[in-house]
Amino acid sequence: MRRVAILGAGMVPFGKYPGKTLSEIAWPAVKAAIEDSNIPKKTIEAAYCGTALGGMMSGQRILKTLGITGLPIINIENACSSSSTAFREAWIAVAAGVYDVVVVIGVEKLTKFGGGTLPLEKEDFEVAHGLVMPALYAMRARRYMHEFGLTEDHLAKVSVKARNHGKHNPDAQLREPTTVEEVNRSRPVADPLKLFHCCPSGDGAAAVLICAEDVASKYGGVPINVVGSEINSGKYMTGFRDMTSPEITVRGAAQLYEEAGIGPEDIDLAEVHDAFSIAELLYYEALGFCPRGEAGRLIDEGETSVGGRIPVNPSGGLLAKGHPIGATGVAQIVEIVRQLRGQCGDRQVEDAKVGLTHCTGGGVSGFDHGVCSIHLFSR
Amino acid sequence: MRRVAILGAGMVPFGKYPGKTLSEIAWPAVKAAIEDSNIPKKTIEAAYCGTALGGMMSGQRILKTLGITGLPIINIENACSSSSTAFREAWIAVAAGVYDVVVVIGVEKLTKFGGGTLPLEKEDFEVAHGLVMPALYAMRARRYMHEFGLTEDHLAKVSVKARNHGKHNPDAQLREPTTVEEVNRSRPVADPLKLFHCCPSGDGAAAVLICAEDVASKYGGVPINVVGSEINSGKYMTGFRDMTSPEITVRGAAQLYEEAGIGPEDIDLAEVHDAFSIAELLYYEALGFCPRGEAGRLIDEGETSVGGRIPVNPSGGLLAKGHPIGATGVAQIVEIVRQLRGQCGDRQVEDAKVGLTHCTGGGVSGFDHGVCSIHLFSR
Repeated sequence: MRRVAILGAGMVPFGKYPGKTLSEIAWPAVKAAIEDSNIPKKTIEAAYCGTALGGMMSGQRILKTLGITGLPIINIENACSSSSTAFREAWIAVAAGVYDVVVVIGVEKLTKFGGGTLPLEKEDFEVAHGLVMPALYAMRARRYMHEFGLTEDHLAKVSVKARNHGKHNPDAQLREPTTVEEVNRSRPVADPLKLFHCCPSGDGAAAVLICAEDVASKYGGVPINVVGSEINSGKYMTGFRDMTSPEITVRGAAQLYEEAGIGPEDIDLAEVHDAFSIAELLYYEALGFCPRGEAGRLIDEGETSVGGRIPVNPSGGLLAKGHPIGATGVAQIVEIVRQLRGQCGDRQVEDAKVGLTHCTGGGVSGFDHGVCSIHLFSR
Repeated sequence: MRRVAILGAGMVPFGKYPGKTLSEIAWPAVKAAIEDSNIPKKTIEAAYCGTALGGMMSGQRILKTLGITGLPIINIENACSSSSTAFREAWIAVAAGVYDVVVVIGVEKLTKFGGGTLPLEKEDFEVAHGLVMPALYAMRARRYMHEFGLTEDHLAKVSVKARNHGKHNPDAQLREPTTVEEVNRSRPVADPLKLFHCCPSGDGAAAVLICAEDVASKYGGVPINVVGSEINSGKYMTGFRDMTSPEITVRGAAQLYEEAGIGPEDIDLAEVHDAFSIAELLYYEALGFCPRGEAGRLIDEGETSVGGRIPVNPSGGLLAKGHPIGATGVAQIVEIVRQLRGQCGDRQVEDAKVGLTHCTGGGVSGFDHGVCSIHLFSR
């Protein structure tokens, strides 16, 4: 297996673009990634496109707009992990020597559904019983509060941090700062989660250009190395399980750290899947950023803010940057690339050398049939 | 890259199963492939699931039913080529040494849409203008008839052959033989195509178990070797193009033959993408089974029937076996596996050693943003 590097990264500001087609949303992100890479468009040998709900042949439709045709195009779906899975597939193909230069796209247009419910599968047991995402994470929050004395203010502080980071990110959907009081006063969604504990719905796209490390030197620039990649799905477990410890992330992180020879103490920053404020707190522990039960202390003490010990979601994360499902995985990688290059201005993590992206997704429950993909990068 | 072999193959009879969930349709195919392989279920390290319209996390939902959890599961969409693309991705990952044993699934439940129009993307130029598949292939048929003197009887003979093969395939959706007269009398769909020139709509699933060749010997059985894999998308071309020569297949076949060191003359049988009778005829030429303009002669002289020089679609093909979009690519491979093993009874191609599968797909037009995946297998 060859070593793989990222040479270009681009995205469009996440937001609501009901008047644009999927291709119109995505092509500027792809163009930006290509231009950023300094690689001639014709050098691209294959494309991987992650989207959950973009419809048939999303990658083909997007690339056609840019006149990129004739090459292998593979569309990947894995719910919220769609484009992080696409990135992993592209990484495998380049590492294996099948292609030298590949573009990876993440895209979603959620306004296509008119702001209503997404087309979930009613044959899914959890969907049929109403156990949709906010309900599930609300239960996890309630349980964690019971077990470890977490308060609603702790939850709110995650959203406040997200907005504080997001205000410095021109690509973030929500750039207005907020306060603990405002979060607590926002309308209830699923107790104890309020509106501001939940990531916004929206549209967006992101893209990266990856290539074999030995090819990277040809094009100049600062290649960002892909140090490791892990993906897995949830284990079906009968009987009691600890809903405050996301098994799928715990296992994925352990596998990745072992395979990469890098531990959580080596990581300078992380983009994690904070679809809900409680989620980010659970992932602090699952990714090894703190011991069990101490996530509340981490947010209290500002350890995960830019300037803290281990900044999490300097981009604003899903809570502020937004979460157009299929776009999120690659957008996380775009942020890590920019951070490791030192291009992030007021949200820059000082001297960042190693970054992690963490993306989960699930039909609904994120338990039995969820997916979790984690990647490590270095400069 | 390691050599890869298929150890197990299974499918369910294609048909209409409105009362079954996607998982209920698919799990028996996966179970059959695993049992056929003689590989313990726990040995499977990853899963690739091809589906065009199965909805989020199709692979996860299916495998959960069988208690196969915790492993990487990747869902792939490429329209009618969804599961042939999934097969290719799995092949890359095994060849690269990322996994030793992988299951590949193809699945679709078209009755979910109540027999009405499939959810095509209205932002697609061709869709918006009504250039849906039957219309497109009707124009190709008309042009080919004009250029090469093909008659409606020639077209009908493709459908007759398909049914003659399908009647011997217990997994085929349409098993009643038909006649040229009956095909010609069936109701018009898009002139000159009649109903019997078009593949039926339906549900179905198929699965194969692949593994590294050096692992295969551990499990016994007759491994079928994956000799080559090619995938590409259509080239955007301005100005006139020859609509009777499918560029994407011509180019893919040429690439594959060169990379595998195998020519059309070495192929004992092929499963090709006969979504419409005219399609099969065009692909005879594109795949090099006969010179340009001679497809009509091939079908006239029975060269592509079982017993002929180069049997095409001994399974019945899409026209008789059916075409549950995402299931088709892997189902084609299942047929080739069974043929190369000599398990096909009355539709057996004698002494078959080398088989080809050919799967196309397209947002709609199959031109600019279509996809074509071709695979070669040997015993």
